[in-house]
Amino acid sequence: MTPSPVSIDDIRAANERLAPVVRRTPLLSSPFLDEIAGRRVLVKPECLQHTGSFKFRGAWSAISALDPEVRAKGIIAFSSGNHAQGVAHAAARHGVPSVIVMPEDAPALKIANTRALGAEVVLYDRENEDRDEIGARLASERGLTLIKPFDEPLVVAGQGTCGLEIAAQAAEAGVETADVLVCCGGGGLTSGIALALEADAPGLRVRPVEPVGFDDVTRSLESGRIERNPRMSGSICDAIVTPAPGVLPFPIMQRLCGPGVVVPDELCLRAMAAAFTRLKIVLEPGGAIALAAALYMPETVEGDTVIAVASGGNVDVPMFTKALETTP
Amino acid sequence: MTPSPVSIDDIRAANERLAPVVRRTPLLSSPFLDEIAGRRVLVKPECLQHTGSFKFRGAWSAISALDPEVRAKGIIAFSSGNHAQGVAHAAARHGVPSVIVMPEDAPALKIANTRALGAEVVLYDRENEDRDEIGARLASERGLTLIKPFDEPLVVAGQGTCGLEIAAQAAEAGVETADVLVCCGGGGLTSGIALALEADAPGLRVRPVEPVGFDDVTRSLESGRIERNPRMSGSICDAIVTPAPGVLPFPIMQRLCGPGVVVPDELCLRAMAAAFTRLKIVLEPGGAIALAAALYMPETVEGDTVIAVASGGNVDVPMFTKALETTP
Repeated sequence: MTPSPVSIDDIRAANERLAPVVRRTPLLSSPFLDEIAGRRVLVKPECLQHTGSFKFRGAWSAISALDPEVRAKGIIAFSSGNHAQGVAHAAARHGVPSVIVMPEDAPALKIANTRALGAEVVLYDRENEDRDEIGARLASERGLTLIKPFDEPLVVAGQGTCGLEIAAQAAEAGVETADVLVCCGGGGLTSGIALALEADAPGLRVRPVEPVGFDDVTRSLESGRIERNPRMSGSICDAIVTPAPGVLPFPIMQRLCGPGVVVPDELCLRAMAAAFTRLKIVLEPGGAIALAAALYMPETVEGDTVIAVASGGNVDVPMFTKALETTP
Repeated sequence: MTPSPVSIDDIRAANERLAPVVRRTPLLSSPFLDEIAGRRVLVKPECLQHTGSFKFRGAWSAISALDPEVRAKGIIAFSSGNHAQGVAHAAARHGVPSVIVMPEDAPALKIANTRALGAEVVLYDRENEDRDEIGARLASERGLTLIKPFDEPLVVAGQGTCGLEIAAQAAEAGVETADVLVCCGGGGLTSGIALALEADAPGLRVRPVEPVGFDDVTRSLESGRIERNPRMSGSICDAIVTPAPGVLPFPIMQRLCGPGVVVPDELCLRAMAAAFTRLKIVLEPGGAIALAAALYMPETVEGDTVIAVASGGNVDVPMFTKALETTP
């Protein structure tokens, strides 16, 4: 069943529910990054959001909109980690239990954090088990409400609040036209930001950014129908490896987004190092992929200014150390 | 000669000059940090400020207030690195030249950045040469205006704008009383924040935080007169190693600040790792010392909430990697 569409009013309503709790992340920049990219680079560091990624926005949007009696029975979510932490924290701050279904190969830090944020964690095998099926079964057994990571209008509306902030902050910075590069898995953040910018900053064009080998959204936008990835592992960008574009985000991205950008993993490591040195923020590989495109694939971008959403920072020490080794 | 005192009106005027350019850094938090400290921890991440430290505030405040004809002749500053970068960037954005006198043992990254930001760098020997004398000579020879790092009312007023933001953000967070821990070298940031909080948030009490062996401010506050450090090197907290409290900041700190806190270097490394894992920000050792006190010396702090200013993030990869090795 195709979920109902998302409107700008849904995003503004989510923004009101989020207002008392969300962290309004600043727009960062550095003359050193401008020099690398050959144009002005503005970075929206959602790694600074609660639980270290934008996922808190969608989770809070969905959980805060539930009927209190339904919410009290508890929440369930499945996620490679960032949605998990966002849901666990949003549920805990609402005082309700949460169960998170996670792939057993998710970074240890993400699993540990999700547990420490108060959730019960159920692990599954990413190659051989279907997370949707596991989630649906647990939800039905325990009366939990399933919060899907992107095929859920309230979640897309929540992610869209990041786009409202980008629109306002770009206007403050005097930017009327720019490519907005967004790290893209299922497309919840990408489509939400695109809807917000359509309303509030129509000169800003969203471009989904994906890892080499997991470019399902890019290929789907080219072919005009939902294309799947052949594999579910093999990129360091674990946060944005998903089987295919979500059925809710896809038509929104078709209508509003420019062509996708496909980035090799090694450029994500370099972007993590650049963000460390120049912006003083910590990014995970999937959270650095839009910045990687902005800095190291400038020929794929148009205009005097590029905006890169840095979507998350939940990275283990060994992977971050590996990224720092790419520092010139 | 003792400089003229600084008033809250000077800070508000600096805030107006800074408004179009300053980054209003958010107030960060994490339930994991609250658990370590045993109380609520709020972190003001000035590492996210332009040039990676709060120093941009004071530099912009001073340079923007100069007579345009005087400013056009150029600026000079002496600094272990963060003031250098702040001055170089603020001068460049005003379109005027700058000369920075830096110790030859400053981190390579800071020296390189200062040059890349457009400044001419003059190196000196921290143990055997007097930076004030070098700065004064160059200033007189070339007609440059010297911007001192803390004994300058316009600079203290600029750093005070960080305190105006803390006052507003603490009120938004519902915090009326708290210790505000501030990384302290000469006392420019500490005294500026203290003046701002006196006016806008009188329930917040500033506490200077210093490295073991370089606790000149703590000892001066105890003795009631300016005490000097026996050495000028030997801590990893290079950004806050200064000979003695500034003559301008000291009486302000005497009037407004609580007792100093003295922190061993190894706790700064642990705080850098905690800020990496929990806040997704990059701190240098001296920039992490207030957070280190908040997290690992909780017995020195009073109240349900502690606010830690994280003053800078200009750290080399080897030092940061060393900090990450302390991750449990």
